[in-house]
Amino acid sequence: MSGKAKADKLKARLPRGFVDREAAEIRATERMLQKVREIFERYGFDPVETPMIEYTDALGKFLPDQDRPNEGVFSFTDDDEQWLSLRYDLTAPLARHVAENFDSLPKPYRSYRAGWVFRNEKPGPGRFRQFMQFDADTVGAPTPAADAEMCMMMADTLDALGLEGQYVVRVNNRKVLDGVMEAIGLAGAEHAGTRLVVLRAVDKLDRLGLDGVRALLGEGRKDDSGDFTKGAGLGPDEVETVLSFVGAKGAAASETIETLKGLVSESSIGSAGVEELAEIARLVGAAGYEGKVEVDPSVVRGLEYYTGPVYEAELTFEVTNDKGQVVRFGSVAGGGRYDGLVGRFKGQDVPSTGFSIGVSRLLSALKATGKVNLSDENGPVIVTVMDRAAVADYQAMVSELRKAGVRAELFLGNPKQFGKQLQYADRRNAPLAIIQGSDERAEGVVQIKDLIEGKRLSEDIEDNAEWRAARPAQVTVPRTDLVEAVIKILAEQAADREGAGQ
Amino acid sequence: MSGKAKADKLKARLPRGFVDREAAEIRATERMLQKVREIFERYGFDPVETPMIEYTDALGKFLPDQDRPNEGVFSFTDDDEQWLSLRYDLTAPLARHVAENFDSLPKPYRSYRAGWVFRNEKPGPGRFRQFMQFDADTVGAPTPAADAEMCMMMADTLDALGLEGQYVVRVNNRKVLDGVMEAIGLAGAEHAGTRLVVLRAVDKLDRLGLDGVRALLGEGRKDDSGDFTKGAGLGPDEVETVLSFVGAKGAAASETIETLKGLVSESSIGSAGVEELAEIARLVGAAGYEGKVEVDPSVVRGLEYYTGPVYEAELTFEVTNDKGQVVRFGSVAGGGRYDGLVGRFKGQDVPSTGFSIGVSRLLSALKATGKVNLSDENGPVIVTVMDRAAVADYQAMVSELRKAGVRAELFLGNPKQFGKQLQYADRRNAPLAIIQGSDERAEGVVQIKDLIEGKRLSEDIEDNAEWRAARPAQVTVPRTDLVEAVIKILAEQAADREGAGQ
Repeated sequence: MSGKAKADKLKARLPRGFVDREAAEIRATERMLQKVREIFERYGFDPVETPMIEYTDALGKFLPDQDRPNEGVFSFTDDDEQWLSLRYDLTAPLARHVAENFDSLPKPYRSYRAGWVFRNEKPGPGRFRQFMQFDADTVGAPTPAADAEMCMMMADTLDALGLEGQYVVRVNNRKVLDGVMEAIGLAGAEHAGTRLVVLRAVDKLDRLGLDGVRALLGEGRKDDSGDFTKGAGLGPDEVETVLSFVGAKGAAASETIETLKGLVSESSIGSAGVEELAEIARLVGAAGYEGKVEVDPSVVRGLEYYTGPVYEAELTFEVTNDKGQVVRFGSVAGGGRYDGLVGRFKGQDVPSTGFSIGVSRLLSALKATGKVNLSDENGPVIVTVMDRAAVADYQAMVSELRKAGVRAELFLGNPKQFGKQLQYADRRNAPLAIIQGSDERAEGVVQIKDLIEGKRLSEDIEDNAEWRAARPAQVTVPRTDLVEAVIKILAEQAADREGAGQ
Repeated sequence: MSGKAKADKLKARLPRGFVDREAAEIRATERMLQKVREIFERYGFDPVETPMIEYTDALGKFLPDQDRPNEGVFSFTDDDEQWLSLRYDLTAPLARHVAENFDSLPKPYRSYRAGWVFRNEKPGPGRFRQFMQFDADTVGAPTPAADAEMCMMMADTLDALGLEGQYVVRVNNRKVLDGVMEAIGLAGAEHAGTRLVVLRAVDKLDRLGLDGVRALLGEGRKDDSGDFTKGAGLGPDEVETVLSFVGAKGAAASETIETLKGLVSESSIGSAGVEELAEIARLVGAAGYEGKVEVDPSVVRGLEYYTGPVYEAELTFEVTNDKGQVVRFGSVAGGGRYDGLVGRFKGQDVPSTGFSIGVSRLLSALKATGKVNLSDENGPVIVTVMDRAAVADYQAMVSELRKAGVRAELFLGNPKQFGKQLQYADRRNAPLAIIQGSDERAEGVVQIKDLIEGKRLSEDIEDNAEWRAARPAQVTVPRTDLVEAVIKILAEQAADREGAGQ
């Protein structure tokens, strides 16, 4: 090849913030999602899926004063000059779907979906520009019973994944926060901007702690790098009122509810929110979810569109983070009531509630608790090639094995060096290798090499001469008995694994 | 709501060429893909997935003389001004993945994946701008045994889906076509353009028939709408040589091979291609796939990057097309050898072969042959709300049912009109409705309404009075026996369906 051709060749690389997914990860994710699906189905939810691409305005982040419609979204124009975007979550497309098919859908409309979403953001450790969410939503159900059900479904899902006792589903209500805002004089459209700053500040409690939130509610906060974030500008009394709301959680739900009642007694929207929380607490208690689902006013969720109950599933066990600090694992799923989102299309509110699971984050949690096996699956039986001219014979062995349901393959690389074939079998985690040279073919037999037993023996037997003399874990069987013998040894291997508790 | 608000509200609509997927379609697709996956796994293939977005140049369609890099691809620039594209197939991203991870992958490298791909084309009936492909590829396997295996895996997959006897996997070799080109004086780089026109013309045989292809090989062809497509400009003798290649299929593979040998006897690449075809025929014959896999020179595949064997799974049963014509169902999967694709990154050829299934097209085929049940699944048991104050009691019933593994839900809409709750149960295909009014609660009982039996009886019994008098398919049981009674009736319904052969 010429130097020019080399210089011309393309660099094989993924764009920043995107990853390929390997077999172990795909299989573990699929097993996990299957359990999630089973719970959602048991709750009466049906799958429905929308495409990756929507009209940008349908996604609801269109900013008319920018050259490109949105910073956080991948966008491009269609042939007819209309802006299209890759979806950044699964809720906005669902709202579009429901509005577009409103009359033909049963209501309440319960649906679920797993899907990829895209964020045009600066990638960082653990932050990707394409990631998977798993959502469930109920549209057309106005009562707190629908929100309570979402909280219980979150709990059942985590139980089904083996995380019982290691999580809490925390529920709050935006209306109560609105009531607190009223109490400190932030009602009305003219304070919408400040209310959003307060919301975002409270949402950072987990990361920044009480002092950080206090600073953000007041003048502002300087972070470790020296960057200053302007605060909401509340006075000291107002700050303390907000913080007493955030810290209102008592020993029992009834206690929390009483504290909240006192805080928002002057506000009708705040009082309505407290009533809804009390109803949710009553329903989850009656259904036996006490301790799993808790009223906790420190949960507010960052998204602007929530209009009522908000809820979050937090894993309570501890892990060591990037900075070497021991922290709670934290949130793996969250959601809330968004009565206005479908309404953007319908011209009137449509009561809706739902939540989203961060799929790779949940898988990380299962890895951290040892609840998921990411080791390689058992590989295929490898039929080796000793004699190129006999490839049709080897191929026939593979076909027989597959027809009997055995995972098997013919070695398809260059067969010249036999050692490379066994190396390949080892890399594929093959349980067995099948070998037939011309002598064996003449005798009508095949050799079956038990690679798992071989590996074990080679670890036990130090002396190389002894190992070769013993020819461990290799049997010769008549060619006609190949399939039967393979199935028998695979069963023995499975029994060994069972015995070893693997 | 004011007139202005109405005018402002967004229209809920999908962009052209995109569709939402409903529950029945999602479930049927998933069941089908699961069967495909089982076969691929049995052949020793492992899943690997790449993201939706790649660098445009990595996808290999970059056109430097255009404002936007490509017409058929959705593209946009990243923050650093580099062009990104949504993948238009799964092969180009796999080639990038293999090149990027070349040293760490076992070779031969067998992998499979299902994934969405995107085409920025004018949508039409049955032509979408987002659709799913299911691919399998072997990289690093240079011999025809790898291509033969792909053909057999296609056959096993279609057998597993119940299509045995209704398909043929047809295999050809691009090298033979290259030999034919040589024979008619089209060798060399200066004829590359003409060779591509010949290839595309032959690929249209299915749609245009022999006369259409003849016209496209010669001066050109005017279609039904009067549009003229310029042809390859071959002379009459050259056209007949190409057509005799296309029509070379004989009664047996050996006959086809002999005809091809004669056609390309002067060309070394053509003869090598015929040898490979003969080897593939020998291997599939030895493995018992005769009649399922056939050598057929009329298959060439439209993609430019194939370098050796090409293959296609064609369904042979007849369907009526959009225009009311009775036609063969046609291709549902196809692929071939693409030794140069990974080489774009590596600077040298990497032998690779694989194929792609058109997922929605394959599902259509299963629908057409009655091999897939697209009717609604059994819906959830609906616990109705007679008395708002007792919602916690109803919720407890639902929780008990779910804990026992029964698909169940509380009616979460407005409970005022009871008839609407039963309408909802009907739309959800609910097998049972649970009813408890205040009288029943006082007595400690619940009513279970068998909606399937009720529907059957209402069809049998014409007289409305008789129906009401009989109160068919409704039982009253003690509240404490609810779960047990529900499970019993659901089992009876299942036995009925079984008996009816559904």
